[in-house]
Amino acid sequence: MKTTIELGRMREDIAAIRSANPLVHNITNYVVMNNSANALLAIGASPVMAHWAEEMEDMVQIAGALVINIGTLDSHWLEGMRRAGKAAQRRGVPIVLDPVGAGATPQRTAAVLELIECCHPTIIRGNGSEIMALVDADVKSKGVDSSRSSSDALEAAKSLARTSGAVVVISGATDYATDGERVEVVEGGHPIMTSVTGMGCTATAIVGAFAAVNSDALVAATEAMAAMSWAGERAAAVAKGNGSMQVAFLDELCALTPEKL
Amino acid sequence: MKTTIELGRMREDIAAIRSANPLVHNITNYVVMNNSANALLAIGASPVMAHWAEEMEDMVQIAGALVINIGTLDSHWLEGMRRAGKAAQRRGVPIVLDPVGAGATPQRTAAVLELIECCHPTIIRGNGSEIMALVDADVKSKGVDSSRSSSDALEAAKSLARTSGAVVVISGATDYATDGERVEVVEGGHPIMTSVTGMGCTATAIVGAFAAVNSDALVAATEAMAAMSWAGERAAAVAKGNGSMQVAFLDELCALTPEKL
Amino acid sequence: MKTTIELGRMREDIAAIRSANPLVHNITNYVVMNNSANALLAIGASPVMAHWAEEMEDMVQIAGALVINIGTLDSHWLEGMRRAGKAAQRRGVPIVLDPVGAGATPQRTAAVLELIECCHPTIIRGNGSEIMALVDADVKSKGVDSSRSSSDALEAAKSLARTSGAVVVISGATDYATDGERVEVVEGGHPIMTSVTGMGCTATAIVGAFAAVNSDALVAATEAMAAMSWAGERAAAVAKGNGSMQVAFLDELCALTPEKL
Repeated sequence: MKTTIELGRMREDIAAIRSANPLVHNITNYVVMNNSANALLAIGASPVMAHWAEEMEDMVQIAGALVINIGTLDSHWLEGMRRAGKAAQRRGVPIVLDPVGAGATPQRTAAVLELIECCHPTIIRGNGSEIMALVDADVKSKGVDSSRSSSDALEAAKSLARTSGAVVVISGATDYATDGERVEVVEGGHPIMTSVTGMGCTATAIVGAFAAVNSDALVAATEAMAAMSWAGERAAAVAKGNGSMQVAFLDELCALTPEKL
Repeated sequence: MKTTIELGRMREDIAAIRSANPLVHNITNYVVMNNSANALLAIGASPVMAHWAEEMEDMVQIAGALVINIGTLDSHWLEGMRRAGKAAQRRGVPIVLDPVGAGATPQRTAAVLELIECCHPTIIRGNGSEIMALVDADVKSKGVDSSRSSSDALEAAKSLARTSGAVVVISGATDYATDGERVEVVEGGHPIMTSVTGMGCTATAIVGAFAAVNSDALVAATEAMAAMSWAGERAAAVAKGNGSMQVAFLDELCALTPEKL
Repeated sequence: MKTTIELGRMREDIAAIRSANPLVHNITNYVVMNNSANALLAIGASPVMAHWAEEMEDMVQIAGALVINIGTLDSHWLEGMRRAGKAAQRRGVPIVLDPVGAGATPQRTAAVLELIECCHPTIIRGNGSEIMALVDADVKSKGVDSSRSSSDALEAAKSLARTSGAVVVISGATDYATDGERVEVVEGGHPIMTSVTGMGCTATAIVGAFAAVNSDALVAATEAMAAMSWAGERAAAVAKGNGSMQVAFLDELCALTPEKL
């Protein structure tokens, strides 16, 4: 794994997550809930998965970060996301938004744009197609997989960062994070990561953990992508397919300590 | 694994899935979403899990196959299933229906019969009890596990195929697929597959991948069951329990190439 | 693993689960559904995950136990829980309640108290904070993780057992089960179990399996915790992180036979 950010600060932030165990509140999709919760536990955070509109205000109150992921969206969950997002914004809890499948259907793209408008996320993380679809309505996604490389999407990411005020992360063979001006880069990981469902959603959850301990959103987001890349390339070395990759990835994330990095 | 269908055609279809990466749209149950998505990725397809009624028309439009599975059904999801099914039928997208727990409660049986009536599925895959319950209201299922062997259900499967117009697949120690006249057979797999939750639901998802590349529904469905059986018996050889079986099964499905078959 | 209960009776109950395969009906959270189902299959039970209010009466009718877990609660699911709970109570089907996150938000605490009032659960299993929050409204949970040790919560557990009429189980480094007078104890397991999401929820599901074959709720609940502890410490011996722990735990539960115990 290679990155443009300082590893010294990243070591401090890993130590901070492992000692403070920040609560990361996830309103995420059904497919990845188990893996995202385990990934957060592996890095040292305390995950909670909760979407009931009535309790959003109270749950956000005890959270170090809020992660909103629209993977298996419907109207009912959208209401919980809005309430949680507004509460987080009011309280200064960092919000990480994952626009899963933006561009695949117009309903998804519209829902994401509405969430950006209403909740002002701190960080938005998506793949190339998703980020481009949020900037250019003519870009289509094929379901939840990206049809665009992360470098193709970099200009769209900068533009989205400037208009939304969020740090935007595009994941891919190379990961980019930008606040509209600066661009941080992470290289590494392994192609088999794209064969494990929800690896991107897991990245978004891990961004939440780093955002809970580091208020510099650009750095926090890049650190999370670097952690994913570090664990992913080590796990790929022992994986025999996507089943063992999913398991080994969690084991490697457990092994990620300031000393080992 | 032994089967009555030609392996030459199956090799071509595996190659087609691995090169075209067809989008398989799943409206499936919460229990198996992660595994079904990973199984589809393992065989080379591109899974999307989406149930929001408002986006069904648009999601089906980009799909190579639609998989409907009623494992954790409620009224809210049933509406999404109806909308997606009707859209798929209009557009000629193959529909694969999994009647999980038909016969366990009258509500489930009725919901499946209504979905068959309204959406005309291309393929229906269930276990012995589920298929029998759809033909004979007096047959009861014990939850989602089968109390009948697949061979006991073969006559019911033929009858259901004739009345519904769908290819009907019964999975069990021996798998059968029938269009009401012809019967194709797959033997193999391993009993430990019944100890892994959602192995049948995963089979249904894999049927979707083959149906997306082969318009002969009888052959596509049988190929999918053969792929399950092939991966299952190889995984069982290394599994120590249902935990490692679930992982090894995905790894073996990743290894299934035209050359290896 | 060390416990105050007789291993002879526990061996009989394991044999009874493995021969009768009782249906355990779960209304549980999205995060753990796959693992809970696999854990029930591993111990020999037949899991069904179903929450549709309309079918609750019919599903409970064929169940050996009902497990209600509020991990990812919302109003819609609460209605299914109420209906299933009332039906189970009428029919004498044992009810196991898991008050996930009680104390984290007032809505959760209130929902649990209402479920206790309306359905009279046979057994309640939670961690230290959750049990304390049900007795003392001033105790707060940090999300779904416990901030209190199990021994700190023992007096609250006794009090809750007396007022609710349920056997109350507190899981932690040491597990306690009490009917308000007697206290049974299980020691063992491994700290890495707290790094696997939903290990507590899995325990609750396994309590359901034992409650289905043993009408002495205090003994059944303790046996389930002993089974968790037995499998957990064996799995921890081979686990490299929470990924392989989750897999090895299921494998070890598969290996739990009357002879091996």
